[in-house]
Amino acid sequence: MHFQLTTDFIEKVSLLIARKDGNALRELLHELHFADIAELLEELNSNEATFLIKSLESEITSEALMELDEDDREKILSRLSPVEIAKEIEEMDTDDAADVVAELDDHIQKQVIDKIEDEEHASDIVELLTYEENTAGALMAKELVQVKETWTVAGCVREMRRQAENVTRVHSIYVTDKEGKLKGRLSLKDLLTASAKTHISEVYIPKVDYVTVNTEAEEVARIMQKYDLEAIPVVDENGILVGRITIDDIIDFIKEEAEKDYQMAAGISEDVEADDSIKELIKARLPWLIIALIGGFVSVWILSGFNTALADHAVLFFFTPLIAATAGNVGVQSSAIVVQAIANNTLKGSTWKRLIKEVSLSLVNGIILATILIIVEKLFLSKIIPGMDMLVGITVAVSLISVIILASLIGTFIPIFLHKRGIDPAVATGPFITTSNDIFGIFIFFFIAKLILGF
Amino acid sequence: MHFQLTTDFIEKVSLLIARKDGNALRELLHELHFADIAELLEELNSNEATFLIKSLESEITSEALMELDEDDREKILSRLSPVEIAKEIEEMDTDDAADVVAELDDHIQKQVIDKIEDEEHASDIVELLTYEENTAGALMAKELVQVKETWTVAGCVREMRRQAENVTRVHSIYVTDKEGKLKGRLSLKDLLTASAKTHISEVYIPKVDYVTVNTEAEEVARIMQKYDLEAIPVVDENGILVGRITIDDIIDFIKEEAEKDYQMAAGISEDVEADDSIKELIKARLPWLIIALIGGFVSVWILSGFNTALADHAVLFFFTPLIAATAGNVGVQSSAIVVQAIANNTLKGSTWKRLIKEVSLSLVNGIILATILIIVEKLFLSKIIPGMDMLVGITVAVSLISVIILASLIGTFIPIFLHKRGIDPAVATGPFITTSNDIFGIFIFFFIAKLILGF
Repeated sequence: MHFQLTTDFIEKVSLLIARKDGNALRELLHELHFADIAELLEELNSNEATFLIKSLESEITSEALMELDEDDREKILSRLSPVEIAKEIEEMDTDDAADVVAELDDHIQKQVIDKIEDEEHASDIVELLTYEENTAGALMAKELVQVKETWTVAGCVREMRRQAENVTRVHSIYVTDKEGKLKGRLSLKDLLTASAKTHISEVYIPKVDYVTVNTEAEEVARIMQKYDLEAIPVVDENGILVGRITIDDIIDFIKEEAEKDYQMAAGISEDVEADDSIKELIKARLPWLIIALIGGFVSVWILSGFNTALADHAVLFFFTPLIAATAGNVGVQSSAIVVQAIANNTLKGSTWKRLIKEVSLSLVNGIILATILIIVEKLFLSKIIPGMDMLVGITVAVSLISVIILASLIGTFIPIFLHKRGIDPAVATGPFITTSNDIFGIFIFFFIAKLILGF
Repeated sequence: MHFQLTTDFIEKVSLLIARKDGNALRELLHELHFADIAELLEELNSNEATFLIKSLESEITSEALMELDEDDREKILSRLSPVEIAKEIEEMDTDDAADVVAELDDHIQKQVIDKIEDEEHASDIVELLTYEENTAGALMAKELVQVKETWTVAGCVREMRRQAENVTRVHSIYVTDKEGKLKGRLSLKDLLTASAKTHISEVYIPKVDYVTVNTEAEEVARIMQKYDLEAIPVVDENGILVGRITIDDIIDFIKEEAEKDYQMAAGISEDVEADDSIKELIKARLPWLIIALIGGFVSVWILSGFNTALADHAVLFFFTPLIAATAGNVGVQSSAIVVQAIANNTLKGSTWKRLIKEVSLSLVNGIILATILIIVEKLFLSKIIPGMDMLVGITVAVSLISVIILASLIGTFIPIFLHKRGIDPAVATGPFITTSNDIFGIFIFFFIAKLILGF
């Protein structure tokens, strides 16, 4: 039942575009969903995509444009005239429209807004552009169904029919007083069951969750998820209803946040995708590699400081990658669990308790790993590696346990510490924690070796 | 406007529970949203929480129970009788009810289902339990508003009022034929504007997205996101409408998937939370550490194979952690970008092209890092580290570039390869990629050193 984009189909479309056959193109695509048109656009080059956008109805193309990556959309829009862009924007909901306008160059922004025929739409967009990024104001749309508490049910239904024209999906009907102050909401169910002459003030639900234009996006997402809301009204400082946020915008936000955390954990500092340019990818990846390289220099320096061990216990240097890797892995595990608990708001209890739990857990893991290590050393390594004796084995095992405990403490403590200071704890995952644990791990290993073996 | 749970408030509640004062408790909590009750439950011990559940209306507590962690919910339910559990389940939507029943022990399951008074509700739950996990059937709820195409608008509104009683939120009205086969959907807007005598068959929208009971949850999430759906109807093999899936269930699914990928990247093999027991946390963390340890043994073995370098070029061993860490970091970056592209369905173009892109990118990153390395070596390391000469510097720099290129190729290729074989590419992130890159990195480093320095 769902459309599948095939190579054949793409070729057919390309051919029609090459022939500039707009009619045949409209014919071929008129049954497609805008999301499918968007997929098709991604497969075409910018010239082809632009021709396609110009050939189809803005009702469809405006939705398809919103499905595209920002980069792809910018490429197409840069080939359209202000009037053509304005036509697309005219068809969009105000929140999408404001996002698109914000992406345009400053001098084109003004031209495009001037060309929007619906003046209310234009002024709504201008209003939305004034809100700070990542606030409820910037996320919200102006489209909503609003009724006054003094109206009757019959009048309300009449008015709703009119307003619903502009609203894609009616989530809730918001009730305001004469000044537009949010008073409550009305369920469709109540509207269906109340008699025509009843006043809205008698049937509306006065308890309604809302946010203000300055509420942070993260907080909006938290509230909507916690209370299972599909839409939430937004009010200004005076309690006047100014917009609403729907759950689909929040889904995008949740996905972006999860991706950001994931990328941070992988040592990628900016939001990039596999298809981005090499320059963008380097910009996202190089900084962490440089930080890790600096950490590497520190480990070189530490190791060179223990060079007296080379004479009798060179075998220790064979074990440094093993110790460093274990420290890094344990640190990443610990920090990931804490970062996720912070993100989900499930981090409870005192920091001390959590650290004690990590120590117990690491002690168990450490002892199991050290046991495996001793067995492997005894059975295999001691036979093939020169200089591998019992005392070295004990040194490595003791170091392994110590390093695991320390790495898990660092991995747990740093994100909690950053979070308390108001810094995103996700920066503490990935290369940062791996690198610092590498360094600590190597130092502890040789420090313990020096104590046990004496060099 | 939103309720804030304070320590004072929790103490007050605990006190009332200790006094077994159910009336005062109901009085205190009657204004609270179920999500707030859930937060409160999490702060109480199991005995207190159970008393609270027993004291309040099942209408509220059933919703609050659904907000709890599975573990917390199980603890409370184990203290309730089958009749009490059945009462809670009676208030839940069928999808939630089926989830809760599935969590119960087998022998209690049957008792609880027998005690559910509403027979239709009970048989709906039993039906939902038959579907395989992670399919549309297991995700869907039986509650929906369904009208027949032969009805008039007036009859439809009458019937909807009745059905809407059981449906928390009316997303869409589904139109079926006499046999119950899905024919299309009806928008509320159309219903509001059509005259009372019109037949549904004249106003419904015949194009409707749907999934079958066997569609995988991942595919359902993809379709709902792609087409921006807030609910999707589910049909059986014969096209009969059997349920619907709403966007809030999909949000949970998306979040869980993102968390799973994140945990995999951090080397955590099972879905755990910071508050889980030490045993569960060990079970999730130890396996990866053991795999990494085995990788560590391989690196020990490789290094010992190059022990002839110890005599003249021991300084090389100071650099192994630096090389290994860089290889690991680059590999994780590459694999994370590919895994995310696969998850978002944005991985396009041939594998070859992607690998060539990675090589170009890594060459640039490698040359920049090698330049930094040479400068630091010249200015600092050569002065403080014994045995550090020009040739060693060149060896390390050349190795660094080679290792970065190789690590990025491995990090890119392995997830693509796994994905093509039908294996979750996320397993290739984290410790797996770090460990294998550690090993390759160290081997290449000493191999190049042997070529350049000759030992």
